[in-house]
This record gives sequence, structure tokens and C-alpha cells, in this order.
Amino acid sequence: MSSSHAHSAVVGAQGHLIDSNILNTIFDIVIERGGAFEVVHFQIGRTNDEFSRLTLKVSAPTQPALQRLVEDLMPFGCHPVEEHDALVRPADRDGCVPDDFYSTTNMRTHVRVDGRWIEVERQRMDAVVVLEDGHAICRKLREVKVGARIVCGLQGIRVSPEFRERDRADFVFMSNEISSERRVGVSVGRIAALMRETRTRGRRIVFVAGPVVVHTGGTEYFIELIRRGWVDVVLAGNALAVHDAELALFGTSLGVDQQTGVPVHGGHRHHMRAINAINRAGGVRQAVESGVLKAGVMVECVRAGVEYVLAGSIRDDGPIVDTLTDIIEAQDRYAEALSSAGMVIMLSTMLHGIGVGNMLPSWIPVVCVDINPAVVTKLADRGSSQTIGVVTDVGLFLHQLARQLK
Amino acid sequence: MSSSHAHSAVVGAQGHLIDSNILNTIFDIVIERGGAFEVVHFQIGRTNDEFSRLTLKVSAPTQPALQRLVEDLMPFGCHPVEEHDALVRPADRDGCVPDDFYSTTNMRTHVRVDGRWIEVERQRMDAVVVLEDGHAICRKLREVKVGARIVCGLQGIRVSPEFRERDRADFVFMSNEISSERRVGVSVGRIAALMRETRTRGRRIVFVAGPVVVHTGGTEYFIELIRRGWVDVVLAGNALAVHDAELALFGTSLGVDQQTGVPVHGGHRHHMRAINAINRAGGVRQAVESGVLKAGVMVECVRAGVEYVLAGSIRDDGPIVDTLTDIIEAQDRYAEALSSAGMVIMLSTMLHGIGVGNMLPSWIPVVCVDINPAVVTKLADRGSSQTIGVVTDVGLFLHQLARQLK
Amino acid sequence: MSSSHAHSAVVGAQGHLIDSNILNTIFDIVIERGGAFEVVHFQIGRTNDEFSRLTLKVSAPTQPALQRLVEDLMPFGCHPVEEHDALVRPADRDGCVPDDFYSTTNMRTHVRVDGRWIEVERQRMDAVVVLEDGHAICRKLREVKVGARIVCGLQGIRVSPEFRERDRADFVFMSNEISSERRVGVSVGRIAALMRETRTRGRRIVFVAGPVVVHTGGTEYFIELIRRGWVDVVLAGNALAVHDAELALFGTSLGVDQQTGVPVHGGHRHHMRAINAINRAGGVRQAVESGVLKAGVMVECVRAGVEYVLAGSIRDDGPIVDTLTDIIEAQDRYAEALSSAGMVIMLSTMLHGIGVGNMLPSWIPVVCVDINPAVVTKLADRGSSQTIGVVTDVGLFLHQLARQLK
Amino acid sequence: MSSSHAHSAVVGAQGHLIDSNILNTIFDIVIERGGAFEVVHFQIGRTNDEFSRLTLKVSAPTQPALQRLVEDLMPFGCHPVEEHDALVRPADRDGCVPDDFYSTTNMRTHVRVDGRWIEVERQRMDAVVVLEDGHAICRKLREVKVGARIVCGLQGIRVSPEFRERDRADFVFMSNEISSERRVGVSVGRIAALMRETRTRGRRIVFVAGPVVVHTGGTEYFIELIRRGWVDVVLAGNALAVHDAELALFGTSLGVDQQTGVPVHGGHRHHMRAINAINRAGGVRQAVESGVLKAGVMVECVRAGVEYVLAGSIRDDGPIVDTLTDIIEAQDRYAEALSSAGMVIMLSTMLHGIGVGNMLPSWIPVVCVDINPAVVTKLADRGSSQTIGVVTDVGLFLHQLARQLK
Repeated sequence: MSSSHAHSAVVGAQGHLIDSNILNTIFDIVIERGGAFEVVHFQIGRTNDEFSRLTLKVSAPTQPALQRLVEDLMPFGCHPVEEHDALVRPADRDGCVPDDFYSTTNMRTHVRVDGRWIEVERQRMDAVVVLEDGHAICRKLREVKVGARIVCGLQGIRVSPEFRERDRADFVFMSNEISSERRVGVSVGRIAALMRETRTRGRRIVFVAGPVVVHTGGTEYFIELIRRGWVDVVLAGNALAVHDAELALFGTSLGVDQQTGVPVHGGHRHHMRAINAINRAGGVRQAVESGVLKAGVMVECVRAGVEYVLAGSIRDDGPIVDTLTDIIEAQDRYAEALSSAGMVIMLSTMLHGIGVGNMLPSWIPVVCVDINPAVVTKLADRGSSQTIGVVTDVGLFLHQLARQLK
Repeated sequence: MSSSHAHSAVVGAQGHLIDSNILNTIFDIVIERGGAFEVVHFQIGRTNDEFSRLTLKVSAPTQPALQRLVEDLMPFGCHPVEEHDALVRPADRDGCVPDDFYSTTNMRTHVRVDGRWIEVERQRMDAVVVLEDGHAICRKLREVKVGARIVCGLQGIRVSPEFRERDRADFVFMSNEISSERRVGVSVGRIAALMRETRTRGRRIVFVAGPVVVHTGGTEYFIELIRRGWVDVVLAGNALAVHDAELALFGTSLGVDQQTGVPVHGGHRHHMRAINAINRAGGVRQAVESGVLKAGVMVECVRAGVEYVLAGSIRDDGPIVDTLTDIIEAQDRYAEALSSAGMVIMLSTMLHGIGVGNMLPSWIPVVCVDINPAVVTKLADRGSSQTIGVVTDVGLFLHQLARQLK
Repeated sequence: MSSSHAHSAVVGAQGHLIDSNILNTIFDIVIERGGAFEVVHFQIGRTNDEFSRLTLKVSAPTQPALQRLVEDLMPFGCHPVEEHDALVRPADRDGCVPDDFYSTTNMRTHVRVDGRWIEVERQRMDAVVVLEDGHAICRKLREVKVGARIVCGLQGIRVSPEFRERDRADFVFMSNEISSERRVGVSVGRIAALMRETRTRGRRIVFVAGPVVVHTGGTEYFIELIRRGWVDVVLAGNALAVHDAELALFGTSLGVDQQTGVPVHGGHRHHMRAINAINRAGGVRQAVESGVLKAGVMVECVRAGVEYVLAGSIRDDGPIVDTLTDIIEAQDRYAEALSSAGMVIMLSTMLHGIGVGNMLPSWIPVVCVDINPAVVTKLADRGSSQTIGVVTDVGLFLHQLARQLK
Repeated sequence: MSSSHAHSAVVGAQGHLIDSNILNTIFDIVIERGGAFEVVHFQIGRTNDEFSRLTLKVSAPTQPALQRLVEDLMPFGCHPVEEHDALVRPADRDGCVPDDFYSTTNMRTHVRVDGRWIEVERQRMDAVVVLEDGHAICRKLREVKVGARIVCGLQGIRVSPEFRERDRADFVFMSNEISSERRVGVSVGRIAALMRETRTRGRRIVFVAGPVVVHTGGTEYFIELIRRGWVDVVLAGNALAVHDAELALFGTSLGVDQQTGVPVHGGHRHHMRAINAINRAGGVRQAVESGVLKAGVMVECVRAGVEYVLAGSIRDDGPIVDTLTDIIEAQDRYAEALSSAGMVIMLSTMLHGIGVGNMLPSWIPVVCVDINPAVVTKLADRGSSQTIGVVTDVGLFLHQLARQLK
């Protein structure tokens, strides 16, 4: 084996390597990539609180293969034992970067500049790291300007994966598998506790909400949460505002009478009338102020000063004038609203949920509620250890949450 | 067209032919089968309350094709205009019937014997009609004894499809499509009303329940319903009783702690200990009486005198001694328990739900609750107009139902 | 009953009222809305080819209720017996219309202007009808300019629902329920036949495709279809082009090796490198021309001159410069590309599928393929009689389709 | 911490503790259970091939808590460092065992009797271990006779979890997540390879098949596999045989015409006629021999001498006389047929799949094919590392498998 693995490097890692399933994954990657490993040194954490320390020699058949292998190990906290500054190259044109640019994960990252390790700001996945005035900042490709100093290659970059904290109450809950065959009340209790804790830490609670909130009768409970101050930001699309207004103006949601639960033939016209009414007023805020809109989620947001951002999509009717029809602008506004988030709760919207998931660093807890287990799984897959999935009816979930947060 | 449809028959039908989508289906069938039709006479019900009346000439290329066509039209209330007695032949051996036996639907059926129309008893689908002492009775193939008088062919048989009753409150609700994007509270209200009405009519309310009732925390609410007298019969499998006992004895359900919602490693052994404990006592009733079992759904059933039948399946652990391991016996006991049912509520069990659906006549309303829309759709497909499907969390559903039936 | 239904109107309808389930629905609506009906005259189509004709007196407790009732009946082909010109009012400001504007369905519609019935152009749902130079045209709310002549109220408007054509081969297939428990090969055969027929009629075949086409190995078969000329337009999002390029450049799709089916750790970076490569080239077409992109769906589209439109969404990475980031522009470009469509095939993309569904008139057949039955149901619900749903693996579907269209 | 964890024990474990995620789980369990741990000694496998060795001191607040903790650790290969013989107690009555009986997992287990470690035979989950003539054998509770010697407590028992073998080709594939967004062809190739390998080892290939095999058009491909000798055993229910016969006799499956894919009104009667025909012949074999049944899966099984076992269920129509209506007998016959299995392929049947999963030891690979990801997940959950899940259309899967096994 050693003959075919002529090229080798030594990497180190430390932390809760076993608890967080990291050591296992490191070994897997080496073998998957056709490499080999030899544990040079491993010191196990003797108790639950102690870190483990690993020094690993990895080898591969070719130098490029070794490069790729080391690159693949980085998100799991491995870094070359020998320290160098990060390689920095200028962007050759607006929106483009050198081919060997470092593409970020959503995990906490440091880069070594002039011999000092500095933490990367605005951490998010699928970004590039730009050095600006002594800062290292995550930027989207499209934000890169010609001449910007782009971190490339693999040297001088350290990624710190989130370690699961293994104090009983939280870790077991967080590592729960997603299942509809579970008791929802228990999950709601944990989520309420997490919200209280987020408040205590002075961070914002962000809701990402789809129109199913309205269809399933969640409006009144969501309103309770807003009034009691549990909602700092609402990120949604055109449809939430439209169906919310439709309910307030006509008593229907997507043409279903919300008192009787009965679809009203011809009710499909109601949402167009709601759009016309809001746009005539000049937007949601103006519709509230002028008394056109008297009730609903959006009304409560306006009254309570809750920030809301509505992102457009190809399936929008209207849209109402508040909807950001340019998705670049919408992404930027979403990202800004999330910058001070301490916790995110996604209610039945895969589209906006994935969008938000792309923007978050790995250390912000995310709750994802949907009656379809496939949606919960898909969202949880993108931020594994940080996501609590709850497979249940969104209206009933909000009902229970409002009761527990009285 | 007429040249290729040399063989024809005249059939009649009457009732709410348009409301119930029956007229449409009759025409469809004729065309599907390669036949042709001519409306000899049609008198439409002028108002919502009036019946419509149809006389239809149907034709087909061959005599056997015409036979099959008329047979296909029978479940939609069509019957030959010319009246004959039903054809009756003896069964040639136990469990077997003549090849041209009439295979029943779940709809109300009459057969003509000695010039009189008599109603078929124990109506269910996929049975044969046996004449016994002036009665016509649905029998399973396996119940047929050699020499039994079997209704064959198509003459002298009339099927009366259920007509949708179009008084606003009910028909709109019943014809709702199944959707998870609906307000559950409204559905629960209608179901509670239907339960009260069933009580008023002096009929039994039958629950068909899977172990998800326990996993989702529905136990306490189901117990409330039992104590208040809303549950007459529980049809289930071995798993419901086992997980119910596991919860009572160990506080877990399928190894998940029901207070913390957290899976307990090693908890999978608990259900085997529960089985051992019940079987040592001699069964559920004895376990309750001897104090081995002190709480849970089964305890409440025993105390309240609720009838329960546990049917075995290939996936059973144990099973506990109460479980009927012969499925013929289990089917017979289920069918008996259903004979006085006024309403059936299925809670998250496709296997037993389909089993029960096969046994019911078309006029017994069925409520089917499951978080998986595919299950609700599958169960509803078997008894279309009679099924109310609710896609939601079963634990939360029982919580809401118990509140509405206080 | 008549005392409480003082206000009445007489409406007429004609066509395949029974076959298409229309008569039933008309009666339902009247009762749902708290109204009453009396059949003044009904002449049934005596054979499968003949139309039926209805004259119906409907009544309601109040004049506004009667208005709403008649409005609700219009999509089912009912129109006031007494003929008037359509009511036309000017738009009072850009993007807004009078409160009583007529909101369109996706069904063929005529309006009466100066005593003449003219057909509405660019028919789609959720639009307003604007009179321009003797034409009546569907416009989105946002396209309306102040002073535009908007059709309001209900007079002088006739909607012609699609009648199911009941020639055996097609109608039975079209009315199939959506099920995963079906033989896919049979469905593919019908779809291939429909494609050939669309070709014969000289209409365009439009594919709406999600990146699952790539993940499930459908690329090679989709390419075959493009090369053989079966694809006129591809409507998609950023992700299709990105994952297609990722596959071509790195052999992975969303980080999964397409030869071995094995997820490649670190493969998530590949799609960012693909985006950078395309954007550096200046876009997809330039990347093809300059040889950066050598294979894949987009390459074949460029080479074959297939029109493609990529619509942006909030979850996009990048996006590549070809992606239309403004959803208004994207909707307009989609709508334009659909204007000559004879048939639309949706491959595993709910977002773009709903977007496209909103733009289509009711008479363009739509095929919707997804492995998730909920997606197929949701898309079919929006255009009922025109949609063929196929629940299956998209890669295998394309494989079979390519074989049948050799 | 130590003050509250007065009771302690030292356990050892060895093997691929890191690769198989076992070390992580051991630590988790200790903390979950409110215990504490201290690593006394840990020697890591330096390369992929070397074992790791662990000596761990675990402590808990009370002696019973310590007992439970050690019990929970056993399935992960932990065993008390100090060796004792297993505790053996007699069963006090038929079908019942002492309260502290050892409940088995599906993993390889040894018990220490008279100072010697002997391997437990007929390993399966949820059984008890009975000592008989120097053998230790898994028995179902119901098989236990009074006086049988039952292994109790925790001493003298060693469980050997399956370690993932990390040679590239297999382990990566086996550890794949279940997803419908994958290329099916690749999975089929691996499964075909596994079948060839099973053949080479001289072990039997067992198919567990639901009637969806017939509905989705898989019959002809399944028949090919039978004829070419790839099918040794078919485990199924009544429905497979009935729908298979329905297809052969009437060309329909559950009333759907298999050539046109079109549901045939009245086709629901066909399966009753098929049952009557088979039962009149005296069973499947007799129906084949007498020429009543001429084609289909069951015919090929009879001709090729493939063993089949049909288990009854509460939802059965008929059933045909071949169906084992007693589920105890059915379980026993299934278990016997599985005793020489080298590989199991489950085709779209959750009920029988779970039943079979309960009977298998952990080292038999299982392939589970279903279009519903929830079914695949549920089956995979019961035998984690041994299951390959494929989310796709069963008919298309069989088509591809038959092609690859030509």
C-alpha cells in the first residue's frame, strides 16, 4: 500500500473529535479518496469534558490527489501541522476569482495573515474569503470586485467544526432523528426553552414563514407570538402577505373558508382582489395605516415594528409592491436581517428555508417545522447538527408554541 | 356506429344521478368498454330534492361484451328494465362457487327471489350472496358450504349507490379533498358533531388504532375519550397493546422516553419485557385485574367495558396471548364488532384500516387520520364518498378531539 | 325556501355538461352558496357526441349574494341568458384596477363589446382583461397602465370550460388518478404519442426541468431528446445549469459522483467552481463557444438552438450570469416562451412548475413527472383536466421516453 | 461529579470502534443515562486495518442504574472486563421467562457456559437465549417451555456489533443515505454484484415481494430473474399470488388493464374470480398442474422449484388456500426459509419487510426498494448498517436488474 501512496502530509486536529463523529469521518474520507492514513499520535479525552488530540499522516498516490484530500479534511478541523500564511491572489475581473479560490463552509474559519490567525467575518457557505483592511470577510462571488484579495489554496486556513455539546438536555434532543411518530408537545417545550434562552442572550428570533401558516389556521397563534414580542423578523415570500390579506379581507385563504374549512367556489379570485387592494394603497404599511388592512400577520408586524422581508419568486401572483422582485436584492436583505439572528424558526416553506439555510453560519440553531418529512430532512441535511426537525401540522404547532410561551 | 353495436339492452336508474357524479360515470363506462349509448328518456330533478330518472339503451359488439357492460353498470344503480328473478346455483364444493357468481360491492343490494325484492344482509364488498331460509346474506368465499344457494349472473340484482346528501353542512365537508394544508380544528369540530349524532342514533363508535397513538402522545387524550364513553370498540393489533403496556410499565414507547421525547438506548428491550409481563399474568384482562398493568389505553378499555379485538400480523413480537393469531378468526371477530357500528375512526394504521374498510357497507361514515397523505388517500379510495380524511399528527388530533367532546 | 330566495336570475349553459362533471358542480355551487335552483329546461345529449343544454333559474337571499353566485357559476360555462355588453372601466392608476374587476380563469373566455363577442387573447389565470384596439387581452395587474380599459363586473363575459373528449384512448388516460402503483411504461407510451401529435400540429414542446434531472442520471437521455429535436424550449432555474456544468466539469452532481453513485466529500465545492468558470467565460453560450463547457444539457441546448430561460430564486448560489435575477423579467420571458407551446413536460421542479402552470391556458396539455406524489397532485390540482401526472424516478422516465422516441 | 457516581464498573471493547461510530455511541449512552465515564485505556488502530482497544470505567448514581447502563452498552460490544459464566434460570411456565431475561439484539452473540464462550445460534432480535444440550439458541418467547434454561442478567454475555468494512467499493455504497434524488442505475449495478457474490458463496437469495411488483409491470422482469435462477425463495402475502393470477387470467391487476394502463370499471371483481379459480383447483400448485394458471410469477415459481411462503393478514380477500392464515405458522415458515439466506431483497412491502427484518441476523445484507422514501427509511432503521435503500419505481427497478443480470 505504501508504495502507491508516495505523497504524504501530516495534519493535526483537536476537540471533541469522537463525540461529534469527526474522527470517523476523517478516516472515511481518506479511504474514499483512495488514500491511506497512519495515526501518528492520538490522545483521547478521558472524560466527557476533555478534548481529544490527533496527529495524522495521510498519503495519496499523486500530489494533486493529496491536495484534494487535505482540502476535503479541512471542514473537519484538520489543518497542516506546518503553519504558513494563507495564499492571497487578486480577482482578475468583477464577479470572478482565481480558479483555486477557497470555497467556504458554514463553519467558523480562521485565516493566517502576516503570521496572525484572524477570524473570518460574516461566515456562510459557498462564499469566498476576501481580505479587506486587515479583516477577512465572506463575500458572494457576485460581490467580488476586480483586484479584491481572494484567499486561495489551502494553506493558512483553519476550520473549526461545531462540536456537539454533550450536556444531557440539549444534545440528545438535537441529535434526535426526524420522525412523525413522535410526541410534538415535548419538542415544542424544548423549542420554547431555546427561544427564552435566545432572548436572554439578547439575540433576535427570526421566523421564515410560508402561506401554510395561514391555510392551517396558524394566524391567530402567530399573532399572539408577535404581540408578546417573540418574533423579531419575518422572512417570507409574496404569498404569505397575500393569503394573510385574503383571510383578513374575505375570510378565505386560497379560497378555503377559514371558519368552516370548506373551499369556496370562486374563492380563487379573492387573492387577486387582495393584491389589488394592497397595491392601490401603496403597499402593506400604507394599507395598514389607511385602514385597508385591519387584521392579520402583516398588520401585527407593522404595529409591533417587526422587520419583514418578502422575496419574489417565479410563481408569484401580483406581486404586491412590497415584494422584492430582484432576488439579488432579496438575498442581500435576507442576509442582513439574519446577521443578528440568535435562532431561526422555519415554518413550512422549503424555498425560503433553503435560501436562509445557505446564509447562516453553523452555530445558529434552526428549527424546521413541516408536515412533510422530506422537507424537514432536506433542510436538516444542509446544516446537520444545528437543525431541530419537527414533522407536524404547522397550525397545531403554532397553537402549542403560543400556549407554552404565555 | 350502430352496425358494430348489434347487441343492446335497456337499463334504468333513478336517484340523485347528477349530484353523485353517477350519470357521468355511467356514460364513461359505456365508452370505455367500447360500447355505445342512447338516452331513451331522462327526466332531471328540477330542484335539489328531486330525483332524476334515466332510461338508457346500451349496445356492444358481442353478447358477452354486453353482459360485462351491464355488469359494470350495476354498481351505479343501473338495472335491466325487464325484471327477472335472480339466477341461483348450488356451490359445488366447500369454499368454491360457480364461475359466474355475483361478486358484491359494499353498496346496498337487493335480489329478486320468487318475484319479491329482498335486501341483502351483512352487506360488504368482495363477498358472494347466499340464499338461506328466505334471507339473502353476504358470505365470504371461505364460508360457503357445498350445496349453498349462490346468486349468479346479473339478473334480479339491484344495487343502490349512496347518494350524496346535499344539505350544506355535511356534503361540502365530506367532499373536501384530502390535504395537509388545511385547518385541522375545523375538521375536528365536524367529526365531534358526527360522533354526537352517532350517539343520538344509538349506534356504536369504533376506533381502529395503531401504536402511533402511543408514540405521538395521544394516550392521555384517548383515555379521556374512553372514560367519557366515546369509544365503544377498539380494533387494533398486537403492537398497540404492547406499546401501551411498555409506556405504562417503563415510561417509554418503542424505546422513546415519553416525558423527554428522547430515545433511550436499550429501550428496545422494554417491549419484550412488557410482553413477558402480560403473558405471565395470562393476558391483558388478567394483568389489569392482578395489578400488573395499572394505566394505559388497554387498562381503561378493561375498566370501561370497551370491547377490543387484537389481530395478529407477520411482524408481531410475542405476541401477547390476547392477540388472535389466526387471521380468519381475527377477520370474523372484527366483522362482528363492526356489525353495529354507526361510525368508524381510523388512527394511523393502514393495515387494520384497509382490513376494516373491506368489511364495511358503504353507508357507515369513516374518519381516517394519518400524518401521511398517501395513507389517507389509499383508505379513502376504497370507500370514496363515505370517508373523511384528515392529514395531521394523531396525538394532536386526539388532543383536539378530547377538548371538543368535553 | 322560495321566500328566503327572493332574488333570482336565469342562466344558460351548453356542451358536454354531464361528461365533464360540470352539471354536478353547478348544482353544488348553488347549494354551497346558500342559494336554490330550479331547472327550467334541460335537454340531455342523447349520444356521446351530442351536447346537452341547460337553462337554470338560480336564486339567493340578497342581490349581492346572487351576484356572487352567478360569478361563481361562470367558470363552468354559465352565462346570463339576457345578453349585455361587458362593463368597461378605466384603471385609476398604474398597476391598479377598479375593485369590481373581472379576474380571469385559465379557460377560453369571450367578452361582448359593441354587441359582438370577441375572444380574449393570451388567456391565463389571475389576470385582468384589457380592451385595446378592438382586442381583449389578458394582462397581469402590474402591466396595467392608468386609463387602461378594464373589463369589470360579470355581464358580457362568457367562459368555455374544456370539455373532456371522450374518445377512448385519450380520455381514460387523462382521467387516470395519480398513483405510484402503476406501470410507467404505459404512461410513457401515451406521452410519446402526444409529443408526436404536437409535432404534427407544428406546436412547440416545452420542458420545465429541475436539477433532479441531473442527479438521477437523466442527462444522457435528455441530451438524446434534444439532439433528436424533441425539445423546443427549456424553462429552468440557475440550479439546472450549475449542476449540469458541475457534472460536465467534475463528474459530480451536488457532490455525488455520477459514475459510482457515491457522495464525494468536499464535492460541494464543485458547483461553486462551475459557477466561477461559467461567469468568467461570460455566460453559458460563451462557455460553450470558448470550449470551457464541452458536454451537458446546456451545451446541447446551445448547439441545437434550443431556447432556454433560467429564472432566479432566493436559494440560488451564484447565480450564473444567464440567470434572470428579476422575477418579473423571468415571468415575462417564461410567458413569451410558452406562447407557442403545444405541450409542456415538467420534470421534478415544483417551483418552476407552479410558475408555468399559472401562465398556461387550460387547453395546453401538461405532463408532470416527480417521484413525490404530493408534488404531482399539487401541480395537477391547478389545471385539473389538462394534466397527466406520472409518479416515478425522473432519470428512469427520461430513459424510457428516449427509447420510445427513437 | 464523582460523588454522585459512587457505583462503577470497568468494561472493555475492541474492534473498528471509530469507523463504525461505536465509540461515539458508547460515550453518548453513558451521558444520556446520567452516568459518567473515564477512559482507562484507549489504543487507536493506527491504520485502516487495525483494531482499536478500549478499557472504560463507567459510573452511575445507583447500583441498578449502573446495571442498566452496562446493559445498554452491551450491543456496542462492551463487556465486563471481569469474566463470569452467564446466569441461567429455568422458565417458570410455558411462554414465560424470568423477569431479568436477556433480550437479544440481531448481532452476533456469545454466552459463557462452564467457562467456555459459545456462539448463540439462530441469532435474531427480540428473542431469549435458551441453553439446550450444550447449545445456546435464540427462541421466541412463545417457544419457551417450562423448565427451559434461560440466559438472564448481563454476565457472561458478549455482543459483537458488525463493523463496517472500509474497502472502498462497498462501504461507501452501504453508507449512502437514502434518497430519491439519486441515479438508480448505479445502485442496481451494485446490487447485481452483491447477488453474484451471494451465488458464489453458495447462499440463497430471498425476495420479499408485495403486489406492487405486479401493478407496476414488474412481472415479466421478475419472471426473467426466476427463470435464470436468481430467485431462491419468495416470501409474500396472499395479495401477490392473487394479483399475479388476476393478471394471468384477466389481464388486469387490481382492476387496471396492464396493457393500456387504464382502470377497468368493474375490474375489482376479477381478483375474486381469480381466488375462486385457484381454490377450486385446490391451490396454486394444483392450478398450475391442471392448467388453470398458465402464466405469472407463481407459475414460474412452481416450475422452477422456487420455495414460496404466503403469509396471511387482516386485509386479505379470500384468501387462497396456500396462504398461511395463522401468523405463528407463517412466522415460523418465513424464519425457516430465511435460515440459509445470504441476501434479502424487499420489493415494496412494508408489512412483510418488517416481519422479515425482525427475523434476520445483522450480517445478512438487505436491499429495500420502494417508491416511498418513508418505507425505505423505516426498514433501514431496523437494521441500519446492513440495508441498502433504493427509492424508485419497483417495475423499473426489476427491469434494470433483469438487464444487468443477463
